[in-house]
Amino acid sequence: MLIVMDHNATAAQVRAVQQAVEAMGLQAAPIPGRERTAIGVLGNQGYVDDTAIRNLPGVRECIHVSKPYKLVSRDFHPEPTVVEVGAIKIGDGHPPVVIAGPCSIESPEQMLEAARIARDAGAQILRGGAFKPRTGPHSFQGLGEKGLKFLRQAGDAVGMPVVTEIMRIEQLDAVCRYADILQIGARNMQNFDLLKEVGKCRHPVLLKRGMSATLEEFLAAAEYILAEGNPRVILCERGIRTFEQATRNTLDLSVVPLVRELSHLPILVDPSHATGKRSLVAVMSKAALVAGAHGIMVEVHPDPAKALCDGAQSLDGEGFGRMMGDIRGLLGYLGY
Amino acid sequence: MLIVMDHNATAAQVRAVQQAVEAMGLQAAPIPGRERTAIGVLGNQGYVDDTAIRNLPGVRECIHVSKPYKLVSRDFHPEPTVVEVGAIKIGDGHPPVVIAGPCSIESPEQMLEAARIARDAGAQILRGGAFKPRTGPHSFQGLGEKGLKFLRQAGDAVGMPVVTEIMRIEQLDAVCRYADILQIGARNMQNFDLLKEVGKCRHPVLLKRGMSATLEEFLAAAEYILAEGNPRVILCERGIRTFEQATRNTLDLSVVPLVRELSHLPILVDPSHATGKRSLVAVMSKAALVAGAHGIMVEVHPDPAKALCDGAQSLDGEGFGRMMGDIRGLLGYLGY
Amino acid sequence: MLIVMDHNATAAQVRAVQQAVEAMGLQAAPIPGRERTAIGVLGNQGYVDDTAIRNLPGVRECIHVSKPYKLVSRDFHPEPTVVEVGAIKIGDGHPPVVIAGPCSIESPEQMLEAARIARDAGAQILRGGAFKPRTGPHSFQGLGEKGLKFLRQAGDAVGMPVVTEIMRIEQLDAVCRYADILQIGARNMQNFDLLKEVGKCRHPVLLKRGMSATLEEFLAAAEYILAEGNPRVILCERGIRTFEQATRNTLDLSVVPLVRELSHLPILVDPSHATGKRSLVAVMSKAALVAGAHGIMVEVHPDPAKALCDGAQSLDGEGFGRMMGDIRGLLGYLGY
Amino acid sequence: MLIVMDHNATAAQVRAVQQAVEAMGLQAAPIPGRERTAIGVLGNQGYVDDTAIRNLPGVRECIHVSKPYKLVSRDFHPEPTVVEVGAIKIGDGHPPVVIAGPCSIESPEQMLEAARIARDAGAQILRGGAFKPRTGPHSFQGLGEKGLKFLRQAGDAVGMPVVTEIMRIEQLDAVCRYADILQIGARNMQNFDLLKEVGKCRHPVLLKRGMSATLEEFLAAAEYILAEGNPRVILCERGIRTFEQATRNTLDLSVVPLVRELSHLPILVDPSHATGKRSLVAVMSKAALVAGAHGIMVEVHPDPAKALCDGAQSLDGEGFGRMMGDIRGLLGYLGY
Repeated sequence: MLIVMDHNATAAQVRAVQQAVEAMGLQAAPIPGRERTAIGVLGNQGYVDDTAIRNLPGVRECIHVSKPYKLVSRDFHPEPTVVEVGAIKIGDGHPPVVIAGPCSIESPEQMLEAARIARDAGAQILRGGAFKPRTGPHSFQGLGEKGLKFLRQAGDAVGMPVVTEIMRIEQLDAVCRYADILQIGARNMQNFDLLKEVGKCRHPVLLKRGMSATLEEFLAAAEYILAEGNPRVILCERGIRTFEQATRNTLDLSVVPLVRELSHLPILVDPSHATGKRSLVAVMSKAALVAGAHGIMVEVHPDPAKALCDGAQSLDGEGFGRMMGDIRGLLGYLGY
Repeated sequence: MLIVMDHNATAAQVRAVQQAVEAMGLQAAPIPGRERTAIGVLGNQGYVDDTAIRNLPGVRECIHVSKPYKLVSRDFHPEPTVVEVGAIKIGDGHPPVVIAGPCSIESPEQMLEAARIARDAGAQILRGGAFKPRTGPHSFQGLGEKGLKFLRQAGDAVGMPVVTEIMRIEQLDAVCRYADILQIGARNMQNFDLLKEVGKCRHPVLLKRGMSATLEEFLAAAEYILAEGNPRVILCERGIRTFEQATRNTLDLSVVPLVRELSHLPILVDPSHATGKRSLVAVMSKAALVAGAHGIMVEVHPDPAKALCDGAQSLDGEGFGRMMGDIRGLLGYLGY
Repeated sequence: MLIVMDHNATAAQVRAVQQAVEAMGLQAAPIPGRERTAIGVLGNQGYVDDTAIRNLPGVRECIHVSKPYKLVSRDFHPEPTVVEVGAIKIGDGHPPVVIAGPCSIESPEQMLEAARIARDAGAQILRGGAFKPRTGPHSFQGLGEKGLKFLRQAGDAVGMPVVTEIMRIEQLDAVCRYADILQIGARNMQNFDLLKEVGKCRHPVLLKRGMSATLEEFLAAAEYILAEGNPRVILCERGIRTFEQATRNTLDLSVVPLVRELSHLPILVDPSHATGKRSLVAVMSKAALVAGAHGIMVEVHPDPAKALCDGAQSLDGEGFGRMMGDIRGLLGYLGY
Repeated sequence: MLIVMDHNATAAQVRAVQQAVEAMGLQAAPIPGRERTAIGVLGNQGYVDDTAIRNLPGVRECIHVSKPYKLVSRDFHPEPTVVEVGAIKIGDGHPPVVIAGPCSIESPEQMLEAARIARDAGAQILRGGAFKPRTGPHSFQGLGEKGLKFLRQAGDAVGMPVVTEIMRIEQLDAVCRYADILQIGARNMQNFDLLKEVGKCRHPVLLKRGMSATLEEFLAAAEYILAEGNPRVILCERGIRTFEQATRNTLDLSVVPLVRELSHLPILVDPSHATGKRSLVAVMSKAALVAGAHGIMVEVHPDPAKALCDGAQSLDGEGFGRMMGDIRGLLGYLGY
């Protein structure tokens, strides 16, 4: 940490800051400059809580050099993490994974048909939502535990592992019973109690980036899960909220290579939620893979026009099949 | 709802859209234009789910005229809601309320001293956090239920009702037992399960705006609570996330008069979280009251330099006393 | 400046950075830490160009302690700047100024009537746009130099100084001839050539914040003008672009007290452009004054329904008169 | 346009709006709903100026169906525009173009060496900045017209056309004399006077998206150029400003396929400015091409560590060569 003093801070103020740093068991190294004095803080392991410092008289700013995460950092864990889900491996050195399925589980028939479409086109993992976060209370809220059963049955029927979102801690037992991967949605990325609970599970966790989360906050959220003992975290970029309304969110694809520099965890991309437009899903999926994503997650529905949720961004069987054909060509270029 | 067709949509496509609208029990009124056709949708009560429409061939865009909230709307409920907490009234026609206290409950002594500072300076309601959402897992996470007791005891000692944040449904009984007002924090503004549960309580709910929530989403979140039968909702603007990093968040003060136009619910402002800077809290509190806020919520700590959380934005006793003196002068101007 | 090295930077890399710093005539003070080494840069006066440093092997980040402005900083110029326009004084210790008038100059009659409304209600300075930046080429683009004459005539008729926007350097002579204050609009805040040219003038300059400009960039833009020798700069906050679309822009009112901390220049607020809604202008004007603004700039039109530009945010004579009555009451509270 | 009335608008108010619409030579089609009345506006060709409407009593909102651009729209001009620069063709059906060179022109030697690196690695067009917009006045501001000569000489020496930024109208003659393509930088995207002037030229124009410009505003800016008679516009996405600071800007890659849907103009991507990090440039270049970009623009410098501007995002000869090798492999996959 670097503590920057005011231009006209007194020598006594500088000394008081040094003493406060030392009282924390750390060392303080003053760096006198022409315009102002700064004080380097040494000896810390990881992020320093600056509360006792930044309120002292004469302190202008505390600049953090360490990050609020360490377990997820590649600096301290250089080997890539590969998350295994049955025979499927997600991470560096393995072909990118494709997760596909409907936004909402609507019925056994819809789910089974979606599963067949996903499998036939070549997806490896099936997705489907049983608990749905919706902006307004007057929209369809999901089938709940009944939906989990339909998802599991469809997955078993086609031989695919399944992933579904958990929205509250009480759902943990049920979701663990039916699903192979637990998904934490964007709205819950900073639901720290939920993060801690999934951190105590053995299931892999697919953690979606919050719509206004910085990359630093995203990695710090993953840190919550790892800190509880679960290292099987898969990150997922799904677009951030910006002033631009031409797409549902703004897909921040540059974080894919950046996450690969900063962290050892695998990272996927969800182009369906990011763009909100069916016509952009295939092309942005390919761009994501070229950017280095370890996989993609795509909304597929047997009949998008009748989907109870997010139909506008869902592909139908034909569209998904075409996209998967395209992607197979790309995998050759990528060396898989 | 207005359905805008593509420039070159065919007559058959227009007819198919009309039929889909009619299949929903609504009427479709085509509006042919020189450049393209639009189709007005009539007969709906409130927000229309456009899923079955926006995926049809030839449809370019669905524009919603109705909003995803109704119970919170002033259009349908013109009289202002006044939320009573004991003898305190929050809402139109009543003097603005001041909620004060520390970010975190740290000890009985700290809480009691904060309560005395708050009361002596003229605040009406005491705040304090027992469950703390923190960006990283290595920071102080709050005292939990023990903290709730300290808060209650401090409130009783000075004769003030208390408000505290609830972060998960399991905490509901405990929080209802100890607190007079339930706070939903910014990170949980779209934790819809939690919203529904507090909607089943009789306690007033202080709902903070999510850091990336639009005003429409903020009001739709309140709708979740009202829809479950709890009309005692107090909104609270606390800053939004933007590109500007000079303040912790960007205080969106214009929503105060806008909420007063669009909704009958009272709205407070939290200048401490919005600005993140102690030196801005008093001046932005006054600006908030002049903008029409029904009250403010301010972080006050007996010794901010030692606060375990958010010290940089907390006022000490002297600073809070001075601010409250200022505000008393302003209340005269405001007619209270 | 603080240079942060990679976790695994070598000693040779650290030495190379030290030498590069010394080659710039500055001193380098290594701060070894447990996790990584940082290097403090000493001896600089003001902002350091980090180009020669940040590309060296092993360098992770360069953190700037100095700001890209100095002349506008209160640190180096503690006394407030008061800009005089005829007998009107804008800045600390003087009653807030009110600038009023139409968005666009449309005709001599419209301009004169607007001027009378402005003066009769108590505004001190008249505004009006002759050159109009419009999003699309098919909208009204302003009257040009003819408009400047109408503005000057209207100002002379009611005895008010006038302000108008300059959009390109070629307009400088004409605008200086007709106007008392030169306005730089939000879109030109980083038109550095234009800033330099108005920096060579003697006219006061009203500099509006760019819609996506950070506070630091805003002050650095003012630095361009001061650096050329013109210290008579008046800043103006007019809202920033965020994800929120309920208002035209998001009025960032917290920058008003923050600018007063960081700079000696006066700062105004334009609630008309910030909110884009007539019903919010009066209330946000009062909030701005309480937040410490040295004045406000408001759009007033004799007949907003017929305005060629921005009618939705313009007040008519009656609305503006009512607002000014309100403000007079507030000035008493503010001590004027 | 659709005019939405207040819930409790009177019949007289609705009639007044209808009359106002008809006074504009358009037709008004009332759409009575259960909750409120809306009024469709028919007969307009393109965007309607709503000034005379949105201020009328009882009007809640005006919703625009037409866009503020038409000449750039694919709706009205379905065939793709291919911009020719000498023998190079930019647009649909042609291999993507690579523009490379330094941020700033620094000397004849630096420019010539950069040109050789660019050509040897396979770039088609040479870039270099003679007039530099810089945040603070104390940074290097570019060589001016002298730089233009160095750029031209370097281009001629290696046989490449050159592109350079024009910042003000007075530079137009010089820039047209020396350059093959005129670049409008992000800060000038809404410098409408400048847009009009380059619209009167015959030179191709490379128009960069403003850092806070919506896609609609971006296309409307291009409309300014086409409206003056110059159809040779090449769009360029270069990142937008968001809350995320991990990259210099947020590369909004989804606009590439979206622009291809909405417009017939070619679109490039500048990954150097978008990310601000050298290590991300190659990977995001490839992602851009897969997303459908008609080319990329990349900063290349013989010795980035000594660059006077933007060194941190510049590739050196070796890095650029490696990237171009990668891209050649990708072109095969893309069918070129």
